[in-house]
Amino acid sequence: MSHKILILPGDGIGPEIVAEATRLLHALKDRFALAVELEEAAIGGAGYDAAGEPLPQATLDLAREADGVLLGAVGGPRYDQLPWEKRPERGLLAIRSQLELFANLRPAILYPQLASASALKPDIVGGLDLMILRELTGGAYFGQPRGIRTREDGVREGFNTLIYSEPEIERIARSGFEIAMKRGRRLCSVDKANVLEVSQLWREVVERVARDYPDVALSHMYVDNAAMQLVRAPKQFDVIVTENMFGDILSDAAAMLTGSIGMLPSASLDAQGKGLYEPIHGSAPDIAGQGMANPLATLLSVAMMLRYSLGEAAQADRVEAAVGRVLDQGQRTPDIWSEGCAKVGTREMGEAVVAAL
Amino acid sequence: MSHKILILPGDGIGPEIVAEATRLLHALKDRFALAVELEEAAIGGAGYDAAGEPLPQATLDLAREADGVLLGAVGGPRYDQLPWEKRPERGLLAIRSQLELFANLRPAILYPQLASASALKPDIVGGLDLMILRELTGGAYFGQPRGIRTREDGVREGFNTLIYSEPEIERIARSGFEIAMKRGRRLCSVDKANVLEVSQLWREVVERVARDYPDVALSHMYVDNAAMQLVRAPKQFDVIVTENMFGDILSDAAAMLTGSIGMLPSASLDAQGKGLYEPIHGSAPDIAGQGMANPLATLLSVAMMLRYSLGEAAQADRVEAAVGRVLDQGQRTPDIWSEGCAKVGTREMGEAVVAAL
Ligand SMILES: CC(C)[C@H](C(=O)O)[C@@H](O)C(=O)O
Ligand SMILES: CC(C)[C@H](C(=O)O)[C@@H](O)C(=O)O
Repeated sequence: MSHKILILPGDGIGPEIVAEATRLLHALKDRFALAVELEEAAIGGAGYDAAGEPLPQATLDLAREADGVLLGAVGGPRYDQLPWEKRPERGLLAIRSQLELFANLRPAILYPQLASASALKPDIVGGLDLMILRELTGGAYFGQPRGIRTREDGVREGFNTLIYSEPEIERIARSGFEIAMKRGRRLCSVDKANVLEVSQLWREVVERVARDYPDVALSHMYVDNAAMQLVRAPKQFDVIVTENMFGDILSDAAAMLTGSIGMLPSASLDAQGKGLYEPIHGSAPDIAGQGMANPLATLLSVAMMLRYSLGEAAQADRVEAAVGRVLDQGQRTPDIWSEGCAKVGTREMGEAVVAAL
Repeated sequence: MSHKILILPGDGIGPEIVAEATRLLHALKDRFALAVELEEAAIGGAGYDAAGEPLPQATLDLAREADGVLLGAVGGPRYDQLPWEKRPERGLLAIRSQLELFANLRPAILYPQLASASALKPDIVGGLDLMILRELTGGAYFGQPRGIRTREDGVREGFNTLIYSEPEIERIARSGFEIAMKRGRRLCSVDKANVLEVSQLWREVVERVARDYPDVALSHMYVDNAAMQLVRAPKQFDVIVTENMFGDILSDAAAMLTGSIGMLPSASLDAQGKGLYEPIHGSAPDIAGQGMANPLATLLSVAMMLRYSLGEAAQADRVEAAVGRVLDQGQRTPDIWSEGCAKVGTREMGEAVVAAL
């Protein structure tokens, strides 16, 4: 039986980087007997261009049928003037919500070959390998009521609702403990329980789920302190679990600690482990179409998909090893280039990984 | 006419560090003719101990009469089991709200003498001098409705409301532009306007206020990107203005960039420029009572008070210069100590600054 993979190139550098993922998947199929079928559909600005919607119904239908979805990136200045509901980001938020992709895994790994790219001192980040688990379908991102209204006294106000139910917290907490069990068995739950009631419930539920995982050392940290600790001593963390908005902020900070966000993949999973995979970097409109984007985060997203959704751990290992070899050989796209390395483009980098499989 | 200063030692290391501030203020009075009267009152856990409330009414009354309020820090494990409304943090949040201290200035400055303490590489942070202006009396911190409730289907949910009115945004935006005018004339407003309606209103109002400040270069940045940029290239910023929760997170990250949060003061101002001043570090219960806490952030908070609330810029300069001289002499509390420096305690450090006035 063949794995069905849906490819969503999206906008900006999206098409260029997923082209290399497609190349990789074809190579795995042809040379290493990976059983895959690929389809492609439009999302984001491309979805709007093709079908008038950032998440066309046809794309959503294909995504539901797929065993794994690979996304490039969405967004770009061309779409900035569209009304709110048509903006590229709405497509991304809609697919996360529609597919109930509540568990967003964002690893922050420092590749030893790229250690010098970090803004942090080598002893602070050397060997960094932390996993941020971000809740992805709740909180202020989706909470109702929301909007901009005019009060009775004529004053306008904008408002959003930061809301989590017990089952929503429980399932992400459980994912956090499961991931911690497969790693260093340390889970840090990040909240703002000294200020927010929603965080108090969060903490209470996380504590309760913890009883089912006696082998995991659970700690709690306020989000402001977590932001500090990520800068001060990021290696203290193994797995961090947190709500949607805090996760958005902290995972981007954590990614930047490595200095090479062009290297970092992510997975967004539903309760059955089906998921959407995407590089954590954005659509980078400024370099789109120039063939210089780094495809490695996307190729590593393919590896995550093989591992988490397709049950193909050996193929995932193969991809990750190939990426490691290419880095060892000194090939670098401009974003990760340093003195003494060979500067290559998107396509050369993709081909190099395929050659190193 | 004498300036009335209210001192709120609070909890943990609070009493130790404000004792040095008191010493400093007495020295300025005796030796440099600063006209001040000091009073002291209880807040936080100390408020609870003294009067059963984290913000006793008597403290609030004195704070209203004062020209400036100096706070040590609040909170500690002794108070962790208290009900929500009695917790030390509630005292801090209540005084901010009651005095309408909406403008929270958090400078992140790297002292050249302490450059090696940063987790970041010297070229990334050397010369760092950025100001984060955090809105302090709105957003999810104070938004209604809030709580934990049981839905009709029996499921519990926690909820908070992230809300800003147009006048609230306008006044903090205006403060941001005013501060930028006195600095490098660059203001970056941080929001999450691609997801939150409250941020869309925020951005719209900031844009409108900008028309009154044609000399300030305004930019907008999403909060996740801002967290990244602070790690990647913090010197790109001059002044950042943002809402309460984003400001809480980003200002702590920014402070930690310097590696010496024991050095950083803050000011929380009302519309008339009256304010509360406090070190940005917390109550550090683990080292409380040991005489090893760094009092410099508190002494620099006194300098900020002299400058912003009391109109005593020359005295402020005097204090800041004295701190610089003590650092030049190599005196260091344990938190900022490095090889080749003299390790001193809280009191010795306070005395050294007074001697260097
Ligand atoms: C584009 C934006 C809506 C999105 C988010 O905030 O979730 C992005 O920042 C991310 O983290 O994937
Ligand atoms: C103690 C806490 C309530 C407070 C806040 O979140 O505002 C603190 O973190 C701060 O930044 O002053």
